[in-house]
Amino acid sequence: MSIYETGLDRNPANYVPLSPLSFLKRAAYIYGNRTAIIHGRRQYTYSQFDERCRRLASALARAGVGKGDTVAIMAPNIPEMIEAHYGVPMLGAVLCSINTRLDGSAVAFILRHSETKVLLTDTEHARVMRQGLDELGSKILVIDIADIEGERIGETDYESFIAQGDPSHPIRLPDDEWHAIGLNYTSGTTGDPKGVVVHHRGAYLNAAANALSFQLTPQSVYLWTLPMFHCNGWTYSWAVTMVGGTHVCLRRVEAGPIYAAIADCGVTHLCAAPVVLGMLIHAPEEAPRSFRQKVQIATGGAAPPSTVIAETARLGFQITHLYGLTETYGPATICLWQPGLDEMTLEQKAAFMARQGVGHVMAEEATSLDPDTMEPVPANASKIGELAIRSNTVMMGYLKNPEATRAAFEGGYFHTGDLAVRHPDNYLEIKDRAKDVIISGGENISSLEVEETLYKHPAVMEAAVVARPDVKWGETPQAFITLKPGAEVTAAEITAWCRQHLASFKCPRHISFGPLPKTSTGKIQKFELREVARAEARVVAS
Amino acid sequence: MSIYETGLDRNPANYVPLSPLSFLKRAAYIYGNRTAIIHGRRQYTYSQFDERCRRLASALARAGVGKGDTVAIMAPNIPEMIEAHYGVPMLGAVLCSINTRLDGSAVAFILRHSETKVLLTDTEHARVMRQGLDELGSKILVIDIADIEGERIGETDYESFIAQGDPSHPIRLPDDEWHAIGLNYTSGTTGDPKGVVVHHRGAYLNAAANALSFQLTPQSVYLWTLPMFHCNGWTYSWAVTMVGGTHVCLRRVEAGPIYAAIADCGVTHLCAAPVVLGMLIHAPEEAPRSFRQKVQIATGGAAPPSTVIAETARLGFQITHLYGLTETYGPATICLWQPGLDEMTLEQKAAFMARQGVGHVMAEEATSLDPDTMEPVPANASKIGELAIRSNTVMMGYLKNPEATRAAFEGGYFHTGDLAVRHPDNYLEIKDRAKDVIISGGENISSLEVEETLYKHPAVMEAAVVARPDVKWGETPQAFITLKPGAEVTAAEITAWCRQHLASFKCPRHISFGPLPKTSTGKIQKFELREVARAEARVVAS
Repeated sequence: MSIYETGLDRNPANYVPLSPLSFLKRAAYIYGNRTAIIHGRRQYTYSQFDERCRRLASALARAGVGKGDTVAIMAPNIPEMIEAHYGVPMLGAVLCSINTRLDGSAVAFILRHSETKVLLTDTEHARVMRQGLDELGSKILVIDIADIEGERIGETDYESFIAQGDPSHPIRLPDDEWHAIGLNYTSGTTGDPKGVVVHHRGAYLNAAANALSFQLTPQSVYLWTLPMFHCNGWTYSWAVTMVGGTHVCLRRVEAGPIYAAIADCGVTHLCAAPVVLGMLIHAPEEAPRSFRQKVQIATGGAAPPSTVIAETARLGFQITHLYGLTETYGPATICLWQPGLDEMTLEQKAAFMARQGVGHVMAEEATSLDPDTMEPVPANASKIGELAIRSNTVMMGYLKNPEATRAAFEGGYFHTGDLAVRHPDNYLEIKDRAKDVIISGGENISSLEVEETLYKHPAVMEAAVVARPDVKWGETPQAFITLKPGAEVTAAEITAWCRQHLASFKCPRHISFGPLPKTSTGKIQKFELREVARAEARVVAS
Repeated sequence: MSIYETGLDRNPANYVPLSPLSFLKRAAYIYGNRTAIIHGRRQYTYSQFDERCRRLASALARAGVGKGDTVAIMAPNIPEMIEAHYGVPMLGAVLCSINTRLDGSAVAFILRHSETKVLLTDTEHARVMRQGLDELGSKILVIDIADIEGERIGETDYESFIAQGDPSHPIRLPDDEWHAIGLNYTSGTTGDPKGVVVHHRGAYLNAAANALSFQLTPQSVYLWTLPMFHCNGWTYSWAVTMVGGTHVCLRRVEAGPIYAAIADCGVTHLCAAPVVLGMLIHAPEEAPRSFRQKVQIATGGAAPPSTVIAETARLGFQITHLYGLTETYGPATICLWQPGLDEMTLEQKAAFMARQGVGHVMAEEATSLDPDTMEPVPANASKIGELAIRSNTVMMGYLKNPEATRAAFEGGYFHTGDLAVRHPDNYLEIKDRAKDVIISGGENISSLEVEETLYKHPAVMEAAVVARPDVKWGETPQAFITLKPGAEVTAAEITAWCRQHLASFKCPRHISFGPLPKTSTGKIQKFELREVARAEARVVAS
């Protein structure tokens, strides 16, 4: 036995479970009087923020929430959303942030599947949520967040609820850092959403990696353009608190309020899908565009085109391209700066920045695997493999879905489903997207889900849905439909059918009728349909 | 059972032991062609650095080094020292960096106590090391680092040794992140040095905390003024590699080479004891003092006086005051910036910056405990308690010393032995040092060790050693001696005796004879002696 194997064990002085709850404790202790959250005229210091989180935890505990229970929230990026990221895990409970763009059925599925005990819901989403609760049937505690006027569907409101909580409720770290902290449903590529479970250890480390990569400091001011229901806001919900920076909330992601926040609050950092970059560039004339500070933007979902890079730079922004998935707590790779980049022409720069890049500072490995050998593809920029990741910042697995979990982790890697080449400098670049996902305005749309809806229409025989490039949204779904013999239906009727059964952002914006191209074995050749959609989009654009 | 307790287990895709070895893998993968290490004309890219570390690991493995074995090194801050920080842990072996200022006996004690199997030793330290090996008696493999001309005492030299190693030796992470990576001997406050054992998890986290706190980036250039034998260079040995920055080596910590490196290599960061700040301020005229970049200096060991703050700022440096111990991987608290600091007068600023501050971003708790209640003292700037820390960046324990380990961790905190108040803003400030330690030029000197040496002199009846303030060294040991009745001895003879038995930096620079002040129970009142030493120092200075 080695001399190092005896008398050197864990104890409370030298071992603490990694948890982002420690960030709140520290920020309240050190930065108590500094501004933690700005939401228009509502502002909280770190002491107040800490107290509100403790009250929330205390009130939830009194309502029967405990370790391993699920608390769901549907809200925009407002203070209550940030508070839930601390108040819920303090109890060992798990926060399920629901995408605000889902429809009632999807919401009902999530509430049921996650076995949600308590729901916090913003009045803005009352209509959809009421539908979801109706469809759910069973009774759960519903709490309205009345940040703005609107319909109330719950038994109490958030402020009354937390007012009864104990402001000195303890911040208890989990016994084990391998304890669930968040549950985020992804539309993924198959029908039902999958519940991605993330833990305290990963949340801590991904937040630290973000803080380090983007040089967050106590002076940083972070604007909440990226929805927190996306992988907990790529873990910035915790990263900003880690450094004692300021969270700036934003109910409406629009150019006016974004520029106003940048100017008024001194925003230094924000994350955004490309659709938001477009907003900033094409802002109405009256938006106050002048600001002095350097503003860093992390963008993901699709590569920023060269015009976007040029125009955002001209406006004073500094763009970094990231890549990740819900399963990787958001950012897993980053297109890191390298010497020479600043001297490149705009076209060269855009080509470089379009890459998904390399594993971030705390990701152990991000590579592209040859599906035949499960070895990294050669770094020759041409051989395509599957982008795969090993990291402490990879999810625990899919909730109640051992089969999908096993498939995702096959061979000791998390399989993203995205197809990428490896450049000679080891930077990854995605060449083809996991075939069934359409990314519209930063939201994943499962083409399979849309197809299933179409297939249910009595007139539809066959349907295929693919991504159509779109200047504003990045992509939108385009449907190709073959009708049943003798059936007659208009595009407008199909659209109405979809709107009835799907969230509106998932509805195809373009519908074509006719026979579908197939392989000799009868499989629909989506590749050809994508070509058609691209060609049509080009014609329209020109 | 909660729904989160099943089907969500660790696997190779979502769990990786935290280890700074991952930093080297990533840097070599991403920054292969960039400069990792500069040592005058010797320079290595990250690919070359990676290869040299792998060769070292391979050669050590062939020499019989394996998991849990100790490899010792005595060298200044040269490339081999950095390489050892990776090549040794790659094997699961433990790196013991020996203080280059120790004498042969202390070295022999360390080699014996650590059960060192292989020793890497710089030719500059051949004389002391030969003494140490002679005193050790038993035979170990000794490898000379022949960075400069000098006496060789080993069986081979470093370059020949690693030339035989396999450049593609795998970088194997430990099975468990709770695995020893370093062994650092501290003089502490009692006689024999204690072996502080640190692990991969703590090294990873403390490096990340440093990188985050000091905004290290891939563009950072770190100058090695702080000896790497001090807590692995406060974990910058790993932090700089984590971000893919550049290590600039330095054999001689002198103003000329420091300024030259700042100017020639574009240094952005360095760590230094106050004695080095003094060097920078009082540099000879010919030192090239002009540089354009912002240079951040982290300083610890003693609070920077206001004149030092003012003069270093004038020279273009930005100072941050830290506090920590070998047991906390170096920095444990940091005197963090707060709003208003920049507007303070120099005196106010100096008073603020003299504080030890608050726990760093990954330290769970740093406080001052009332010894009676073991609760934090009130934040009133007057009640003195013991500075205590809970953190993942606290050592595993003392090697083969369960009693000292138990005492250090009593009550679930690591006890620093330093006495501190808590200001109303929760910043800690040390008011009295652990009574027996003198810090001279950044080195800890155990007054007990010096006293023991004095007590062995045939003429000495009683001896007490305390810190005497010193403009250059911060502190030096001052001895108060009562002679045996009838005995006669001069200060020069005492000095000669000390030089024979102690490393020269530990020898008292001032010696007084006479009766010692005592309590009614016969305990020597060191407090009074410190007052005398301070008063004498003031008289000399004025």
